[in-house]
This record gives sequence, C-alpha cells and structure tokens, in this order.
Amino acid sequence: MKLYDYAYAPNPRRVHIFLAEKGLDMERVEIDLTKKEQLSPEYQAVNPLCQVPVLETDDGTRISECVAICHYLEDLHPEPNLFGSGPDERAQVLMWNHIVEQEGMPGLAEALRNRINNFRDHALPGPVHYAQLPELVERGRKRARHFLDFMDRRLTGREYLALGRFTIADITLRVAVDMAARMAGKFDLTVLEGRAALAAWHARVSERPSIQGGA
Amino acid sequence: MKLYDYAYAPNPRRVHIFLAEKGLDMERVEIDLTKKEQLSPEYQAVNPLCQVPVLETDDGTRISECVAICHYLEDLHPEPNLFGSGPDERAQVLMWNHIVEQEGMPGLAEALRNRINNFRDHALPGPVHYAQLPELVERGRKRARHFLDFMDRRLTGREYLALGRFTIADITLRVAVDMAARMAGKFDLTVLEGRAALAAWHARVSERPSIQGGA
Repeated sequence: MKLYDYAYAPNPRRVHIFLAEKGLDMERVEIDLTKKEQLSPEYQAVNPLCQVPVLETDDGTRISECVAICHYLEDLHPEPNLFGSGPDERAQVLMWNHIVEQEGMPGLAEALRNRINNFRDHALPGPVHYAQLPELVERGRKRARHFLDFMDRRLTGREYLALGRFTIADITLRVAVDMAARMAGKFDLTVLEGRAALAAWHARVSERPSIQGGA
Repeated sequence: MKLYDYAYAPNPRRVHIFLAEKGLDMERVEIDLTKKEQLSPEYQAVNPLCQVPVLETDDGTRISECVAICHYLEDLHPEPNLFGSGPDERAQVLMWNHIVEQEGMPGLAEALRNRINNFRDHALPGPVHYAQLPELVERGRKRARHFLDFMDRRLTGREYLALGRFTIADITLRVAVDMAARMAGKFDLTVLEGRAALAAWHARVSERPSIQGGA
C-alpha cells in the first residue's frame, strides 16, 4: 500500500494523523503541490481530480477522498476505533466529520486560494483553471469566523466533537483549526482567542502524539 | 423516527430515494424552504445549520448530513446493500459519493444560489447572510459542465458510478444530474446531450421505482 501525499497540505495531514493514531505507516509518494506536480499527466492518471491524498492498495486500486481512505483503513484495522461503534455512534462521527468538511474547510480554502499567488488561475483545486475572485477572500474569512464560533458553541461542555472520545471528526477539525491558525495573521482571523471551549479542546487534542508529529 | 424534510430540495431527495430503495418510510415534518422556515428559532434548535434533511430517532437524537443519515439507515437495515460490502467496495462507494458531493453539487448550487431571487442574501445555506456574487453564476456553470464531462468519462464502459451495481453514489449523482437538468434552460447548460455514457446511465437508473417516485 502507498500514499500519494504532500506533507504540508491539510487533507494529507488528516490521513497522517489517522495513520499515527492507528500505529500504521506506509510508503509515501510525494506530489509537490508547490511545483504543481498534481497537474502532471502522470498524476492525472492516478487521480483525474488532481488532488492528494490518494491511497493505492497492493492490487493497484486507488482511493481518493480522506473519508473513504480513513474508512478503508478503519475497516482493515478496527482498533483504536475512530469512526464510532454501532449505528448511533457511527452516524454522529460521519455527521460531524462531514460538517467540518462542508462548513469549515471550504471557507478557509476560499479565503486562501483567492488571495495567495500560488493559486492564481487555480482558485479551485483540480485541473481546470478558475480565476481568483477578490470578493471571496472576505467571504471566506466571514465563513471561517462563523464556523469557528459554531465549533466553540458545540464544544462547550464537551471534550470532543462527535463522541465522548477522540474520533476522525476531531482530526478533521484539528486540521481545519490549524489551517485557520496559520492564516490568522495574514487574514486577520482570531482562532482560539475568545473561544474558550475551542481553545480547551485544542489543548486537549494537542497532547496526542499523533497531533504533535509532523506538519 | 421522523425526517425533517422539504420534498423539493436536492438533499432531502437523496434520503427519499434511499428510503424507497430500502422499502422504508417514516413520518416527515415539512420545513418549507420557500417560506424560510429553516431559519426559524424552532428549526435552529433542531439543526443550527438550518439545513434539511435531519433524521430524528425515537430517543430524540438528531442526525444531519445525508451521508450520515443514509449510513445510519443502512446500519439498521443492511439489505438491499447500498454502501458496498467489505472494505474495498465500501471505500469506492464512499469515495464516489463524496466526489459528487464535493465536485458536482457545489458548482450547481453556486450558479443557482447566486442568481435566483429567493436566495438573495442567502447565497450560501445556513443562518448567516451572504450576498449574491454575479461572478459565481458563470463559475458555477463552468464547474457544472466540467463535472458532467468527468461523470461521462467515468461512466464510459460502466453501468453504475462506484460498483457494478446501484449504490448511494448513484443516488447522489442522480439528484445532481436532475438538478442540472432543471437548471438547464435558465443557465444554458446541456446535461445528457452529447454525453452518451451519462445519458445511458441516466436511462438505466430511471427504470428504478425509487427514482420514478416523488420529486
């Protein structure tokens, strides 16, 4: 098994943390996004959407999309459990993971990709050219602020996002929050300041070796 | 169990088709999106994201996000299988379902919501006001066209999107394609015309009673 990967991008980091929680490792093939290697014909043959990560199994099957990659790894290595046990838990984990993907990541990506020079003509991921739209920088910041507020309310009185223990939903949120933190200065975002429950959760999750290792 | 629902919106329709495939039905509570009932304080207490559908279980637990709702229903009612059997199948199904959600739905929603008067000041779903941006109508159309081309290539030589049989990935794609078809005239989109594999898949899926029933 191998992972098409870029160590410094948010979505690959989700899989890195998941692997570390499982005590797993695998061969990694670096696709350097700063050199636009994801747009090469060779990589388009791996993933026509030109995105990382992709997991390639030993029979050559390719799996993109973090939720699918991690679900596959959980199926093969059920412990420690990161997707919930039983129908009720699994529903909450998938739901909160999806909420972070749909309500958190897109606003951050929108602000970043419509401003940073490296995304000029690639304001959306993938092989198609999309021009940057300056209005989306401000909209993305607004979405990010509302998302962080929502997470702060959700985490008030809770230790973790979906269940009473750490799950993949916390991994996705942590990656989103760290992305926001890296953007904070340039985008005038406050992340943990003024959001006590989010900050307490962040400190709690920071104790995990899986979070401390790597980018 | 009951479903907070709006019969004419794309995401609720995904759950309707899923229920019909399973031979299930349940109480439905209509949230009229044309009257902005999803923004009412009562519904915000059900789902702070102000979106439908939401499944409420008999103990009062609420599940939003179609993938989580359907996964829960599949856990309780495993047959007919719609999420794949075994790790490899499940990964492909989750992956393709996610690709349609991430690459298909957002472009269509972007074109629609930035143009139609009913979404004025609500260009994004949820309780927060976002102004319409006319540039996103054209961007959304472009995203939709590329997505439909991608699906046409994927379906060339295949009967269904993720596996050799109908799955939830086909449900999500069908709802996206029908959304595109309803928008076609006003947004100058061609959907099935010139996309032979997508058209053949559409005809194949149209034979299912779950697709024929309801909006």
